[in-house]
Amino acid sequence: MVFKEIIKKKRDGEILTEKEIREAVKQYTNGEIPNYQMAALLMAIFFKGMTDKETLYLTDAMLKSGETINISCNGTIVDKHSTGGIGDKVSLIIAPVLAEMGFKAVLLSGRALGFTGGTADKLESTGMKVTLSKEEIEEVTEKFGFSISCQTDTIAPADRKIYALRDATSTVESIPLIVSSILSKKLSVNTEAIVFDVKVGTGAFMKTMERARALANGLVNVSKLYGKRAGALITDMNQPLGRTAGNAIEVIESLNALSGDISGDLLEVVTSLSGVLYEITETGSFKEGKGKAEEIILSGKALNRFAEWIEYLGGTTEPKISKKRALVKAQESGYITEIDGEKLGFLIIEMGGGRRKAGEEIDHSVGLRFFKKIGDYVKRGEPVGEIIYNRGNVEEFKASFLQAIKFGNEKINVNIIKERI
Amino acid sequence: MVFKEIIKKKRDGEILTEKEIREAVKQYTNGEIPNYQMAALLMAIFFKGMTDKETLYLTDAMLKSGETINISCNGTIVDKHSTGGIGDKVSLIIAPVLAEMGFKAVLLSGRALGFTGGTADKLESTGMKVTLSKEEIEEVTEKFGFSISCQTDTIAPADRKIYALRDATSTVESIPLIVSSILSKKLSVNTEAIVFDVKVGTGAFMKTMERARALANGLVNVSKLYGKRAGALITDMNQPLGRTAGNAIEVIESLNALSGDISGDLLEVVTSLSGVLYEITETGSFKEGKGKAEEIILSGKALNRFAEWIEYLGGTTEPKISKKRALVKAQESGYITEIDGEKLGFLIIEMGGGRRKAGEEIDHSVGLRFFKKIGDYVKRGEPVGEIIYNRGNVEEFKASFLQAIKFGNEKINVNIIKERI
Repeated sequence: MVFKEIIKKKRDGEILTEKEIREAVKQYTNGEIPNYQMAALLMAIFFKGMTDKETLYLTDAMLKSGETINISCNGTIVDKHSTGGIGDKVSLIIAPVLAEMGFKAVLLSGRALGFTGGTADKLESTGMKVTLSKEEIEEVTEKFGFSISCQTDTIAPADRKIYALRDATSTVESIPLIVSSILSKKLSVNTEAIVFDVKVGTGAFMKTMERARALANGLVNVSKLYGKRAGALITDMNQPLGRTAGNAIEVIESLNALSGDISGDLLEVVTSLSGVLYEITETGSFKEGKGKAEEIILSGKALNRFAEWIEYLGGTTEPKISKKRALVKAQESGYITEIDGEKLGFLIIEMGGGRRKAGEEIDHSVGLRFFKKIGDYVKRGEPVGEIIYNRGNVEEFKASFLQAIKFGNEKINVNIIKERI
Repeated sequence: MVFKEIIKKKRDGEILTEKEIREAVKQYTNGEIPNYQMAALLMAIFFKGMTDKETLYLTDAMLKSGETINISCNGTIVDKHSTGGIGDKVSLIIAPVLAEMGFKAVLLSGRALGFTGGTADKLESTGMKVTLSKEEIEEVTEKFGFSISCQTDTIAPADRKIYALRDATSTVESIPLIVSSILSKKLSVNTEAIVFDVKVGTGAFMKTMERARALANGLVNVSKLYGKRAGALITDMNQPLGRTAGNAIEVIESLNALSGDISGDLLEVVTSLSGVLYEITETGSFKEGKGKAEEIILSGKALNRFAEWIEYLGGTTEPKISKKRALVKAQESGYITEIDGEKLGFLIIEMGGGRRKAGEEIDHSVGLRFFKKIGDYVKRGEPVGEIIYNRGNVEEFKASFLQAIKFGNEKINVNIIKERI
């Protein structure tokens, strides 16, 4: 295989063969293909795309570069994946809810990077163990009906190498490359069904419905080609999800949510995703599944399961939240029309609660509270939120918070579920 | 400057600033920007192109990475550049003709690479010195009115580094990158006017008129932006130019041509290019210049100038041509409709007369003769050409020669000058 001919083929819009894609990944991972040739191929893919089949081969080749995890347990193993957003604590709530519904929910989660948070970091704020072996995952899943753990370096090393190159060459935004990167990790577990929560809006990686739809279709189609049951929802991320954003603070919100004290947007997302899993696994209809999840949450049935799971893995259900707080007050009156999650995500990084680069330490005790959401009317001087901080200039934090909020004269209604794929 | 932002900018179709382009070339040449990032930028340029101004900055940055040659001499310094073809001995003929017309013709030439030949190799078949210092170029130009020498490694090293990367990443074919690569070398000499001979057809790098036109426009526009007088002709390369292709054999054909024994296509190209230079330097009209060049060639006036120049630099006007010859006979009767120069170029490489990779040794004594051209009627069994070889399987060479020729029922007329830019 002359690799420059592969580059040329993709550059000219042709479809690569399974063999060409598998060899490319293998040889690149081995170091036989230099970074500069892979960089040129990635940019050609950025412009010319990949078919679902090409994406499948790329996914599978990256997946096979690492370990696969074959969980043995009784029941239907399901997974939920989010493309990342602000205040997105859906994993923490949905996993015990799915267990209560009778599924075995096995989630592998990532860490915070850039403006979005990471489930593994949120859980780590409790002091619990988040890196589990296959045997530990099996044991925990058997005991609690669900497991959330940190994905390890043994999974899809080819994806890690390719992702680092994409990051340095401005080829991150390619939909087939995003799909294969996500799925090379997701599909490494013997899950039966996956529901994807594709976020769209200012606080998401996908800023437009068109791109969100393309990503959702890619994720679902390639998962199905791989032999999984799969579905997706496109959900709104034009404002943070729920009432808080941060690490420990989101665990607290999740515990409250599971006791029935849950914000409407969060309830809608969690129950709808549960409904999708109910339907694609042919357990029942979407409506039945959604109703079941809602009943479980509002009656607090899954709360103990979640709390005991945290404690079983060495964590506390009362993670430390900084005592230093400051209210953020509106400078004008009007309806809230936008809360820019990306800006708030960077504010959390600024406060020490997020990461610019992989490996950086995180302050779990800081975060943000949101008292008002899009569509709410706010009077000048009224508190719209709260800053929970430890160090730094709180006046600057308050100013950044306010910069993320836009006011207008008309009340906007947000449909949290934008579309089902 | 964060280089991945530069890549992103070009990827998204934006225009890079002069500073961004200059820094990119400087830092890449210094090794501060890694190959993989430059590879991604080159592929983005392949897809999104560059404006003439961007191409000018890129050209100038590459040019300034090396030595510039400031020739002092009496008279108007002119140059002719060909984009490369088969049997293209125009430089050998036009340089003494331009001198005879009163210009100072200073040509820097390259070596054979891939399917096209190189003027420096052809001249080297005479044993003459082809690598000259600035002082030697000045001396020779003063004495003979023209100089043809091999471009040295001190000129535009950034282009060499970028070209090697383009070659490995399938980004060679980008028009602005081709323009900047050519001009970073051409514009390093203080030439007053340049005429470009852009070849189009099976035996050229540009296979379509559209691409040839884009290249010709790029070369002329960027040269003018740089402050040069410039013009271009698009000329036919759907068959080899003149009667021979090879190294020593083309020197012999050039000597014959300068004595008045010249094929029609070669005469037309040499005189038309001379006409363009006559006009763009405001010496006279295109027609006057063309007529003057024709008169010089047909009367043999420039022959001695050329022969003496070869001898002055230590060469012979009777370079060795292999005695092993074989006629190639037509297998069918009909009008010749195509002679694929690229195939013949690869045949010459096969015979040892060309290069697959830079630095390879060349057998100057081999080559091809063409007895028939497009539009000629040939009877089965009639010789269409001759193979001049040293080693290898002559039957295979004959078969390759015939594979390059197509026959048809209708006589096709070739207009050697396709368009003037």
